[in-house]
Amino acid sequence: MAATYTLAELARCSGAELRGDGGRVIRGVESLNRAESGQISFFNNAKYRRYLANTAASAVILRPEDLPDCPCDALVTDNPYLAWARVTRCFAPEPVREPGVDASAVVDEAAEIHASACVAPGCVIGAGSRIGPDVQLGPNCVIGRDVTIGRGTRLVASVTVLDGVSIGEDCLIHPGAVIGSDGFGLANDQGRWEKVAQLGSVTIGNDVEIGANTTIDRGAIHDTVIADGVKLDNQIQVAHNVEIGENTAIAACTGISGSTRIGAGCTLAGGVGVVGHIELADGVHVSGASVVSRSLKEPGVYTGGILAMPHKVWQKNVARVRQLDDMARRLKRLEKALAELQNDAE
Amino acid sequence: MAATYTLAELARCSGAELRGDGGRVIRGVESLNRAESGQISFFNNAKYRRYLANTAASAVILRPEDLPDCPCDALVTDNPYLAWARVTRCFAPEPVREPGVDASAVVDEAAEIHASACVAPGCVIGAGSRIGPDVQLGPNCVIGRDVTIGRGTRLVASVTVLDGVSIGEDCLIHPGAVIGSDGFGLANDQGRWEKVAQLGSVTIGNDVEIGANTTIDRGAIHDTVIADGVKLDNQIQVAHNVEIGENTAIAACTGISGSTRIGAGCTLAGGVGVVGHIELADGVHVSGASVVSRSLKEPGVYTGGILAMPHKVWQKNVARVRQLDDMARRLKRLEKALAELQNDAE
Amino acid sequence: MAATYTLAELARCSGAELRGDGGRVIRGVESLNRAESGQISFFNNAKYRRYLANTAASAVILRPEDLPDCPCDALVTDNPYLAWARVTRCFAPEPVREPGVDASAVVDEAAEIHASACVAPGCVIGAGSRIGPDVQLGPNCVIGRDVTIGRGTRLVASVTVLDGVSIGEDCLIHPGAVIGSDGFGLANDQGRWEKVAQLGSVTIGNDVEIGANTTIDRGAIHDTVIADGVKLDNQIQVAHNVEIGENTAIAACTGISGSTRIGAGCTLAGGVGVVGHIELADGVHVSGASVVSRSLKEPGVYTGGILAMPHKVWQKNVARVRQLDDMARRLKRLEKALAELQNDAE
Repeated sequence: MAATYTLAELARCSGAELRGDGGRVIRGVESLNRAESGQISFFNNAKYRRYLANTAASAVILRPEDLPDCPCDALVTDNPYLAWARVTRCFAPEPVREPGVDASAVVDEAAEIHASACVAPGCVIGAGSRIGPDVQLGPNCVIGRDVTIGRGTRLVASVTVLDGVSIGEDCLIHPGAVIGSDGFGLANDQGRWEKVAQLGSVTIGNDVEIGANTTIDRGAIHDTVIADGVKLDNQIQVAHNVEIGENTAIAACTGISGSTRIGAGCTLAGGVGVVGHIELADGVHVSGASVVSRSLKEPGVYTGGILAMPHKVWQKNVARVRQLDDMARRLKRLEKALAELQNDAE
Repeated sequence: MAATYTLAELARCSGAELRGDGGRVIRGVESLNRAESGQISFFNNAKYRRYLANTAASAVILRPEDLPDCPCDALVTDNPYLAWARVTRCFAPEPVREPGVDASAVVDEAAEIHASACVAPGCVIGAGSRIGPDVQLGPNCVIGRDVTIGRGTRLVASVTVLDGVSIGEDCLIHPGAVIGSDGFGLANDQGRWEKVAQLGSVTIGNDVEIGANTTIDRGAIHDTVIADGVKLDNQIQVAHNVEIGENTAIAACTGISGSTRIGAGCTLAGGVGVVGHIELADGVHVSGASVVSRSLKEPGVYTGGILAMPHKVWQKNVARVRQLDDMARRLKRLEKALAELQNDAE
Repeated sequence: MAATYTLAELARCSGAELRGDGGRVIRGVESLNRAESGQISFFNNAKYRRYLANTAASAVILRPEDLPDCPCDALVTDNPYLAWARVTRCFAPEPVREPGVDASAVVDEAAEIHASACVAPGCVIGAGSRIGPDVQLGPNCVIGRDVTIGRGTRLVASVTVLDGVSIGEDCLIHPGAVIGSDGFGLANDQGRWEKVAQLGSVTIGNDVEIGANTTIDRGAIHDTVIADGVKLDNQIQVAHNVEIGENTAIAACTGISGSTRIGAGCTLAGGVGVVGHIELADGVHVSGASVVSRSLKEPGVYTGGILAMPHKVWQKNVARVRQLDDMARRLKRLEKALAELQNDAE
């Protein structure tokens, strides 16, 4: 956390072009209006233009066209937020990783833990599991049997990964996430439910992030599949046999029902619901809290729902939704009657 | 997992009628289009009929009327999905259960653990709790004080069960579930909230399944009650003093507010919200993402919400919802005016 | 749990006025219709008036105007639910707290645990963390590095608190809660996502309650802030840099997107969604399952959504929402045409 960089170093790591004193020392990141000397900030949103001219930051990341308004050194790029992301990572504290298995962890003798992996206190690892190089398992994680976790993946703490799950490299999984719980498969026998055994597992690609308390169920026969580069926020539910395509990002509290396939490069905002057994094409974007009930075969933006309004306005108008069909029929009748009157009048 | 069965054995366990070679050896289950020789599949959905004739499966579970299309041996039944459920369970790996308490578990000396129960590493069990025969507590489960868990129930891993909760026999509880957390009871004192102590607990019947990261709060005075045969998916919230009737199944991400009673044999699809202090009759079925705000006294299907549509279509139309009352009034005025004109014209 | 009190003692602790025998011994709380001799109940809701006259309770908490209907001793107050809250707390079992660190807990030598704090089995505490007086950490909690937890705060069990989080005094945090997980910050590089490091943390005030499986993300640059007296129910998602004002209460399954500021004294009912980068004024109340998409600058009640109705009614009417714009235009044309006809008729 005490890291410092020269502006030239930050230009290099961020891919932005240096304008100013490359030797200037930068010791942290801040927003435009709170930054002090020695800090770097970024300008990406016209809404905050008033803060740019008066910033006390030592450097700002911004677009070429905003350079004239910049009162200090700059890193210039067409994608300031991307350069910002890279700069913030320079200043992120490295998670403490001491290779080795803590004495309090319980590791089955038939599990393989790479010598460079770190297994924190309270972890439990089952037989047949393979924990790869540079993997970090934070405190109190549970790893079932026959799990594989690839190089460089980090489970922050209190993550549960069940039997047979495969996780790729460089993934980041936040606390409380559960991967490989049973899918919700039930057959009805005259009112009573019988369980359909969930015999698949979960396959997770490389560079995947999974948020806190997110759940990903194992497949019924085949695996639930999360492709490379997928980013899942907190409290997302991914049901059995869902497939999520590369680089799709999904915000918190979204639920995806069984066997649905979501394409690559999609974004689902927070609180979205997607029914089962449908397909979303590559490049579909779903607005917050919308419910998707049919396959969306074309890329584009999709939205549903009635947003909040003052309660009295809602009460007066929304009750009418139940009269809509009646209103539509009456409207049609009126049009017909009026046309007849008009004919008569001619 | 290396289990194999003869087709006659599978007919017997599934309750379906054997058509073909009862001695044929079946070594696994697969979907129709991916099955190979030695595997059994099922046909339950007309949408997949094209796969039936060409399947390479050694046997298919299907209805009598579909038998003519079956290219191989068959198990015939009026409820193929139920027979399938039973067959999948034959092939499910047995959870490893070694009776006894792992050395790393911390069990209060005033807790009773049946000799046939399995307590995995990292579990913590409080005073007065009774863990019944053949119970399996997976890694890192927390069991509070005075909890009872009945014969054959399995907590997969990382489950937290708090003081005084009673869980019946043959239940299955998935990771991250929390049972017996405080209900959300607050009294307001001139703006400040004071806690209403939650003095009830949770009673869970037999043969109940509870999904990953689902939460069930303890009651304020009396218990929250989950009846026999209830099936709860992941990330469901059950508030204090809710009662859920026998064999009701609830899909993921549904929330049920305090003191609401849900009948027997109901189904709530994913993402449903139910307000507090209402009753849903037996046999009520609520569609996904619907919000139930009043008691539903008749069985049947209930639905709400505006499903997702292309954003531009949504934008153009949904804004009009706030004009609905005005439109309804104008429509009425028009009808009246037109009627007058028609009278005049006669 | 075996506590008993005289009615005079309960009057004193609840702030209500004693009417009757102050020496009467009360051994528990119950609802009006189930209470027996020796128990105290409360009457706060006209709906249950029929139970008041016939209650077998030894005392009832109620308003002055209801005293004539009370068949037994009474505690009289203008806020019966508040007095009830205080009485219930008298009868709540004290959580067992034995100061000291359980032998199975793993505490970094660079952490400070106050001698009066209780650290239960299976806890893991990182370097630099400070656990204050009378703090209770229940079983299997994970505390990262440089965390501070103030006097009297209780983490019930299985709570995860990550690096740098600050929690005030007298807070109550339920199982499965995750505090300080990374915010969902991503920059897009030609389709691929890159992580924006989340360099802030979480600051939680005093007297805050956080429900089971609720998640509170750390801020991107500055902290996510939960003010004094805030009450959060289960499965709530609080994104990075959200600020929640004093004494605001939020019911289960609500999600609040990044950088949104919620005022003081607000209530959000269950299942609410709030978009990012907006502000809700003090005293805003949002109805269950509503989606707030804009800043709400005035106190008041806000509501959205279409509630559940019989499926056939829904199907017939809600389909028409997509025709609303067309209907509105046709209505306008009709009004114009009719006005012309009326003019002609004059």
